[in-house]
Formats: sequence, C-alpha cells, structure tokens
Amino acid sequence: MIDARKRALAKTLSWRGAAIVLLGFVTYLLTNDIKTVTYVTLFYHTLQLVVFFLHERVWNHVKWGKTKGLFIQMTGLSGSGKTTLSRAVAKKLINEGYKVELMDGDEYRTELCRDLGFSKEDRNSNIRRLGFVGKVLARNNVIAIMATINPYEEIRKEIKELGPFVKTVYMECDLDTLISRDPKGLYRRALSGDIKNFTGISDPFECPEHPDLIINTADESLEESAERMYRFILKETDN
Amino acid sequence: MIDARKRALAKTLSWRGAAIVLLGFVTYLLTNDIKTVTYVTLFYHTLQLVVFFLHERVWNHVKWGKTKGLFIQMTGLSGSGKTTLSRAVAKKLINEGYKVELMDGDEYRTELCRDLGFSKEDRNSNIRRLGFVGKVLARNNVIAIMATINPYEEIRKEIKELGPFVKTVYMECDLDTLISRDPKGLYRRALSGDIKNFTGISDPFECPEHPDLIINTADESLEESAERMYRFILKETDN
Repeated sequence: MIDARKRALAKTLSWRGAAIVLLGFVTYLLTNDIKTVTYVTLFYHTLQLVVFFLHERVWNHVKWGKTKGLFIQMTGLSGSGKTTLSRAVAKKLINEGYKVELMDGDEYRTELCRDLGFSKEDRNSNIRRLGFVGKVLARNNVIAIMATINPYEEIRKEIKELGPFVKTVYMECDLDTLISRDPKGLYRRALSGDIKNFTGISDPFECPEHPDLIINTADESLEESAERMYRFILKETDN
Repeated sequence: MIDARKRALAKTLSWRGAAIVLLGFVTYLLTNDIKTVTYVTLFYHTLQLVVFFLHERVWNHVKWGKTKGLFIQMTGLSGSGKTTLSRAVAKKLINEGYKVELMDGDEYRTELCRDLGFSKEDRNSNIRRLGFVGKVLARNNVIAIMATINPYEEIRKEIKELGPFVKTVYMECDLDTLISRDPKGLYRRALSGDIKNFTGISDPFECPEHPDLIINTADESLEESAERMYRFILKETDN
C-alpha cells in the first residue's frame, strides 16, 4: 500500500514540528545567540520541508522492506481451536497494522461454495476455491488464514504447491480429548450417527506430514499458542 | 501495509544523509564558522536519528491517508476493450505502488468456476463468486478490477450493494461496430450459430442503468480511456 499524497504532506508537517523544536534547542545550547537560532532554524526548515516531502514520495516507490503476503492453511479436527487461535492471532496482527483475512465459517461457504457438500471430492473443491482466494490475497500482500478442517493430505500438498508463501499450521489434538471436551455436543451427535460425514468419527482425518508449525492446545494456553503463531507469521512475512 | 522495522531504519538513515548535508550547508552559510557547523550538525543529527525512527514507527500505526481498496465491476460486450483497458490501467496503478488484482480470463474460471456454464443462472453464479473475491480484496485495500461481460442488470445491482467501495464501469460500444471489428472472428461464428449463448447475438446484454463511469473506445483512444479510468480510480481510493 502506498501512502497517498496528502498523507505524505501531513507526515512532512508533523515531522517539521518536531524538528523545529529540536534544532532551535540544539542551536541555542551551542551558540547562546537567539538571532543565529532564528536564522538557522527558519532557513534550514524551509529547505527541509521540500526535501522531506520528496523523500517520502521516493520511498513510496521503493518495495524493499515492505512486509510480504502469506497464506496459512490450518488443519485440525473440529474443536481443536483453529478459529479461536486464528482470531487471537489476527487481532494481534491487525493491531500492528497488518492486513489480515480470516477465511473460515459461513461467509465463505455461502458465497463461494454453496453448491458443495461434505464428500471427499466436495471438501477438496471447497479447499481448492478457498486456496485460490488465499493465493490471490497473498500476492496482494495480505495475510490470509484458512481455518478449515482441511482433512486430506493430497489437497494440502496441492495448496502447498501454490507457492512459497503457503504455510501449513497443524492444530494437534487427540480425538479422546476432543470427545471429552465437546462444548457444542458435535462429537456426541456424530457418535450417535446424528451427524454424518463427521471428520474423525465417520470421515477420515489424515495427519499432515510436514507442517510448518504444530500447535497443541492441550499443552499450552491460547495466549502462548497465539504468541507462537504470531511470531511465526512475523518471521515469514519479513522480507 | 505497514512498513517493516528494518525498512523504517533504512529510511531513517537515508534521510539522515540528506539532512546532514543540508544543515551543514545552511549553518556554514549563516555562521561561516566550521566549528559551530560541526557541533550543531553532529548533536542535532544524533538526536534526530532517534526521533525520526520513532516518528516513522508511530506513523505506521496511523491509518489516515492510506489509500482505500476498491472493487470495479466492468461491464461490456465481448471485444469492447474491457481486458485491454484494465491491463493498461492496472499497469499505471502498479507503477504508482498500488496493489491491483485484475480479475478476468481463464484463471478465475478454472479455479473458482469450473463447474459453471453460460446459462443466465451460471453467469450470475460466476459474477457472484468473483464479486465475493472482489469484496474480500477491496476490504484488504486492494484495487480489484473484474473485467467480465457481466450482462445482467440484476446481478450488477447485487454486486453494487456489497458496499460503497463498488464502482461500475461501462464499456459502451454498439454491436455494429463490434461486428465490423471482430478481430477474433467471434461475432462471425456466433452469427453463424457456431458459438451458442453469445452475448449480444444469441444471449441478452442489458445496458447498465447507473454506471459510475462510461468509456466509449470508439470515441477516444486507449491512452485517453486509460488516463480517464486511472484518474477515476485515484479519486475513489483517496481517503
């Protein structure tokens, strides 16, 4: 994102304010002569006003040092904490000024994938479409986080091959723990056959072979996991 | 997009270079005393080094003045110049440092819409999916340009209602002119029945009722149209 012209102008002015006070202070300390202070300060700062503005405009055209986009494909069973963790991490990143798109839940299913069910083929089509959006976002310098179950290794590999900007984060959590937690009662309903195609019960979940980051929410607190994933993203987006 | 820490540091240093030369020059002109020049310059610039870096970091957290995202839905018959114009405009914007996503052609159809044909319903589903991606991009400060035929007013209105960041650009060109140009021979094949569901021949094209910008490539050159659309986008993305 470039700075708009008037933003560069406002930065120029706010910076001048700080600089005038500093130079006046320093010149007076060294010369004790209020006339010299006035001359040096006025002349110097008028010149600087122009040069700083140009300097800002030039830097707007320099790409070096801008943060890169990233596409995180999460994977993990229902209830393993993908959405909760993603939200916590997204909040930290947004506070720092990053652009973050959290790709989960109903919005994406309704808008992009309302024709798809929960067969293996349909799940893979779902991931493929979201993967395409993630790629488009990442190439536009956004940090996209896809917080879906994403159960099949084959499609995860396909997504991984979209480019070096794709990172896989595995939410590791054993089934017994999830069944014992089960705050929404989903596992209970899946075990009784009330929900079909439920990943981990009546549908497979393949553990990822080479995740870039493993998070185990049974072992660490949400704050610790969020901090770890946040650091991981900062490292990966740095040029 | 925020600036990374080391980018802020490099800007600090490049700025210092310019400033040291300027202050030395000004102080010498006014005092003719090389000792004062040395003291003022050294002390002042050491202080400034710190303050400028902090100033940069503070501005990275200020959202004001950053350019906004935008989602342009183009509309116009095949051969009216949507893609050509979009590419020319995108090039100008990218040169200025903007993030631009050109949503047209095979990539989007293959990745997001391979299940869709050319019935009215399928065309609308296609626009709806692309529209969703355009919305996601615009809310992440990207300028997304959807260069599809987009023939139905009903779906254009639906896209328009996604938010104030949506603008409609109409490529106005009468059918006779397009048929007489027809560089790819598409109209000839459509008229002979060789291509079915061809917009303007065997499929309807509804003129947009309230486009935000009308481009008539019969009346003006590509350079003029591109300049006009570029100015339009700059105006709309400015905060």
